[in-house]
Amino acid sequence: MRAVDIIQRKREGKSLTTGEIRYFIRGCVEGEIPDYQVSAWLMAVCINGMDNRETTDLTMAMVDSGEKVDLSGVKGVKVDKHSTGGVGDTTTLIVAPLVAACGVPVAKMSGRGLGFTGGTLDKLESIPGFRVSLSMGEFLQSVQSVGLAVIGQSRNLVPADQLLYALRDVTGTVESIPLIASSIMSKKIAAGTDAIVLDVKTGSGAFMQSVEDSFALAEEMVKIGTRAGRKTTAVVTDMDQPLGMAVGNALEVREAVEVLQGRQKGPLREVSLYLAATMLMTANGCDTLKDGRRKAEEALVSGRGLARLGDMIRRQHGDAGVLEDFSRLPRANRILPIKAEKEGCITSVDTREIGRCALLLGAGRSRKGDRIDPGVGLVLHRRIGDRIRPGDLLAEFYVNREEELQEAVENFRKAVRIGTDKPTPRPLILGSVTASGVDHTPVYAE
Amino acid sequence: MRAVDIIQRKREGKSLTTGEIRYFIRGCVEGEIPDYQVSAWLMAVCINGMDNRETTDLTMAMVDSGEKVDLSGVKGVKVDKHSTGGVGDTTTLIVAPLVAACGVPVAKMSGRGLGFTGGTLDKLESIPGFRVSLSMGEFLQSVQSVGLAVIGQSRNLVPADQLLYALRDVTGTVESIPLIASSIMSKKIAAGTDAIVLDVKTGSGAFMQSVEDSFALAEEMVKIGTRAGRKTTAVVTDMDQPLGMAVGNALEVREAVEVLQGRQKGPLREVSLYLAATMLMTANGCDTLKDGRRKAEEALVSGRGLARLGDMIRRQHGDAGVLEDFSRLPRANRILPIKAEKEGCITSVDTREIGRCALLLGAGRSRKGDRIDPGVGLVLHRRIGDRIRPGDLLAEFYVNREEELQEAVENFRKAVRIGTDKPTPRPLILGSVTASGVDHTPVYAE
Repeated sequence: MRAVDIIQRKREGKSLTTGEIRYFIRGCVEGEIPDYQVSAWLMAVCINGMDNRETTDLTMAMVDSGEKVDLSGVKGVKVDKHSTGGVGDTTTLIVAPLVAACGVPVAKMSGRGLGFTGGTLDKLESIPGFRVSLSMGEFLQSVQSVGLAVIGQSRNLVPADQLLYALRDVTGTVESIPLIASSIMSKKIAAGTDAIVLDVKTGSGAFMQSVEDSFALAEEMVKIGTRAGRKTTAVVTDMDQPLGMAVGNALEVREAVEVLQGRQKGPLREVSLYLAATMLMTANGCDTLKDGRRKAEEALVSGRGLARLGDMIRRQHGDAGVLEDFSRLPRANRILPIKAEKEGCITSVDTREIGRCALLLGAGRSRKGDRIDPGVGLVLHRRIGDRIRPGDLLAEFYVNREEELQEAVENFRKAVRIGTDKPTPRPLILGSVTASGVDHTPVYAE
Repeated sequence: MRAVDIIQRKREGKSLTTGEIRYFIRGCVEGEIPDYQVSAWLMAVCINGMDNRETTDLTMAMVDSGEKVDLSGVKGVKVDKHSTGGVGDTTTLIVAPLVAACGVPVAKMSGRGLGFTGGTLDKLESIPGFRVSLSMGEFLQSVQSVGLAVIGQSRNLVPADQLLYALRDVTGTVESIPLIASSIMSKKIAAGTDAIVLDVKTGSGAFMQSVEDSFALAEEMVKIGTRAGRKTTAVVTDMDQPLGMAVGNALEVREAVEVLQGRQKGPLREVSLYLAATMLMTANGCDTLKDGRRKAEEALVSGRGLARLGDMIRRQHGDAGVLEDFSRLPRANRILPIKAEKEGCITSVDTREIGRCALLLGAGRSRKGDRIDPGVGLVLHRRIGDRIRPGDLLAEFYVNREEELQEAVENFRKAVRIGTDKPTPRPLILGSVTASGVDHTPVYAE
């Protein structure tokens, strides 16, 4: 077998065999196939695609490139949840404690934010003392005793993904359903849970901007998970505006806590309860989605979810006092109100641009390894469809540094589009995908 | 400008600007754009193509990556000829002296054989003493005084092509009309002649196996040459069987000399006279193609072509005595007759495989830099359409080593397919392309 023949076959649009895919990924990880061959192959995959059998083979070859987490020592059907990345998407901090409080263990490996998207690890690290790097033993013990743990991904997990991703980033081969699906699913499968729930974001603040592509990615990932023997469900959720009102690390922690305290209604709460119900359903923790939703809401209203979050924070060496006293969270020096300058209705929001505003304020990173400022960000005060008049508060910017502030404000104003007619409401949840098929039933905000 | 954005645009099937193409090629040659980005871009070009303006920009960016030959010191309209590569294609050794004998200077830079195809330089080097590496001054003086010279390409000519070709070879991106056309035309344009004649081979022994692809490549190259201000003609010629009867370096020199001596008729002579006429026509050395053909034939019949070949051999330090005495050429130790085993008609020939048989005998190279044996090869005794009976001589193998001989013989027998019905004759010349358009008038063997 020769790498060049495998590249050539994919170039010609042929389907690669399991053996060819495994040979290629092994050669890539072992450094036998040079970068320039890997990148030519990635481009051929990007343009000519892969069928689901090939994508599953690719995923499993990637899984086998490194260590796998063994969760068999933890009792019960363990569940993991993954979001494809969005803006103001704080669901993990709400959903994981709710699901754990309903008796289903949550063992989650999370990532860091990059570009316009936030990352759960960065948010958790804004809690003083919180540690995202536990040993595998500590991780398992935490899941066993508290019912949940959220940690960073081990470097030994799926090394193939690290190699491929680094090349994709510089060769224009990021946007590709087989490559995105295999990247996500290899990490989820290697992370060892029995059940996987995927939150595929769709819209102006998501990698997948069209609903069609989002469902295609969702279907692809569910097929891979199912073929790999994991119970897998994908939910396609709206990211045409930030999900919560807060964008920025400590600000998002605060908002998640407010939801768990029962003090905030709205889309973030709605989507969180839907995801929690889906996780319970996928992990056999309820009989119907409605039943799951009822259980999750009970856990929220009773405060058991909040208590479980406190348990996790303590277990991971963080200051659980933040749950009662937000002043213990990092906070920016200055709050700058952004007021409406004209009258009308918010017709659309460039959500990606809102994410970049938070990044300009220091809440995100342009490149891997950049330092972030946990206290800064922005809090929205209006959403799509809201009528506004000049002087109305659109948002508050939490600011620590003046550089790039002007740019952030200007970009924010451009990102929030004000027109005359109220737009047609878009559902919060556009549908879901399971092994049995696609359900396009939408769920609207209440 | 960023390389990744240029790659991404080509991935999306967009047309690249002149500036983008020049930036990319300059970055590639200066080592600023790493191999893995270049190969991803090559794959995107391969799959998504380039329009003619882009291909011309690519060609000119490649030309500008190195030195250019200045032939302005040589009087007259200088002409060059290039073949896309075939088997038993000895036309340069016949055509160049004929055209020079008709008063049009031929300044030709040639290549070496690789894989199943032969190379003019290797053939010339089978003449004892012949030097293919002259200084630029010697080259110009030879063209000036003898009217022709054939040398190897300078390493400083089109370094971009050397880089791109090395990557294409290992990344499955060789077969691509824009990449093939720009590779050929950049070298022809940098080589500085006023007129260019391209012999695009088509069939089982050519890189372009379909007639359609061959005309597409021919049209692309003529457009590039025309845009670059060179008078350019392409001729599409048959390579569904070896053009001459000999395949192997000294054997092909002998056959070319026999044609110039007027001792051999047939396809090699026909195609050579047609190409010579086309070169004369393209370089304004005659009024009509028919006139050109008459002039070329006169040069052949009168022996002026052969004399001119002798002049060139002497000028390039070779033993011109070979023209009268073939025993001065290297010759294999043993001649192995290959006889027909059944009765029938030769219906087709896998010409690529015939080229590989010569390679197995030692006449070619699998890799750049391999040594070749100038004396070995094979001489065909039958062509497509010939009726044969058991015991008839199909070919003679000129052998110096026994290893791989058995394989060569077996492959040869498989390559020559014998059936019952005489196949429809295929034209020797399938048509031609000039700046004015495509002419599909076929020319058949007499």
